[in-house]
Amino acid sequence: MKRLTIPEVVVARLPLYTQKLNQLLREGRESVSSQEMADHLGITSAQFRKDISFFGGFGKQGTGYNVIKLLESLRSVLNLDRIWEVALVGVGRLGQALMSYHGFSSTGFEIVMAFDNDPEIIGKSIAGIKVLDVKEMQKQICHREIPIAILTVPAASAQEIADQMIACGVKAIMNYTPTTLKVPKGIRLANIDPVLSLQTITFYL
Amino acid sequence: MKRLTIPEVVVARLPLYTQKLNQLLREGRESVSSQEMADHLGITSAQFRKDISFFGGFGKQGTGYNVIKLLESLRSVLNLDRIWEVALVGVGRLGQALMSYHGFSSTGFEIVMAFDNDPEIIGKSIAGIKVLDVKEMQKQICHREIPIAILTVPAASAQEIADQMIACGVKAIMNYTPTTLKVPKGIRLANIDPVLSLQTITFYL
Repeated sequence: MKRLTIPEVVVARLPLYTQKLNQLLREGRESVSSQEMADHLGITSAQFRKDISFFGGFGKQGTGYNVIKLLESLRSVLNLDRIWEVALVGVGRLGQALMSYHGFSSTGFEIVMAFDNDPEIIGKSIAGIKVLDVKEMQKQICHREIPIAILTVPAASAQEIADQMIACGVKAIMNYTPTTLKVPKGIRLANIDPVLSLQTITFYL
Repeated sequence: MKRLTIPEVVVARLPLYTQKLNQLLREGRESVSSQEMADHLGITSAQFRKDISFFGGFGKQGTGYNVIKLLESLRSVLNLDRIWEVALVGVGRLGQALMSYHGFSSTGFEIVMAFDNDPEIIGKSIAGIKVLDVKEMQKQICHREIPIAILTVPAASAQEIADQMIACGVKAIMNYTPTTLKVPKGIRLANIDPVLSLQTITFYL
């Protein structure tokens, strides 16, 4: 499988499929049809079958897909069959909300370190993680080879902090700042800006 | 312009164009090339020109686009030439972070009311907004004809609260819960789930 040849829109749908499969698993379901999987995302069953055909043959038409097998395969495709260590930089209100969010650890992501530059916050423990001085960031991230970082700093510092993270080997950044970061090729960037989502919504209102 | 015939991927790019144009405006720039606009999103200049051609002719090739005119046109297309009132339900850590976020008001979105069911939080004032009892939600949202709601409640209550909002005339929901909401046709839903973003990232790592 050549990962980079798979359309990003297909990749973006895979976590939604695993979300649905996890839900079916909790409900004790053993099999699921492509139609039911497709309905979850509001796409056609043909599109669902095409999506997963990128990753080999799963299940059979007629009897449906085995929920556990399909879930395991998709988790493997998404590299979710392991724990990912995450560093968070910027322990303001949003940073603290994310540190306290149980949804990460239950899905294989663990915020293992957090940094800030505010003397009032440095040294405090939030959700069991002691906040370190951002001056320590590069040393700590390099040392522990952290692959993923969450950026919840003020917009003005975002690019500088991102550059420092990438210099220490961070491969992916979740950018919560309203900034368009410049990153080298090969670094994955996920921008989470609620304003952009709202602005897309209002187009339709 | 038939709004619903414009591909959603194109609509999703428009706020990124306005983001770039706002930045150029702050820098005092008067014109911009399609190439520079395209580079901001990592797409081709032909794609940029095709995107904005859905909304009529802007600017000229050769001299580039007038920054202010293009920005005003896109803001009008996105219905951003007005203030949108927003209600927030679920005043936990994330809800409080969003209530304190200045990025909304500076871009035409105003959280004007907030609701929770926790007696410890009801009555408190956060970022200048008094938190009301969620039992008041339907009456207040109906009365003020709020079009947009932000949902930051626990996953277990998400669908019930969403149903109540929609019954009071809410037309768009920003869903911060890790739940796939079922909403009637015509209701816009933006799902903001950091775990889904992380899971898309790890595919490439």
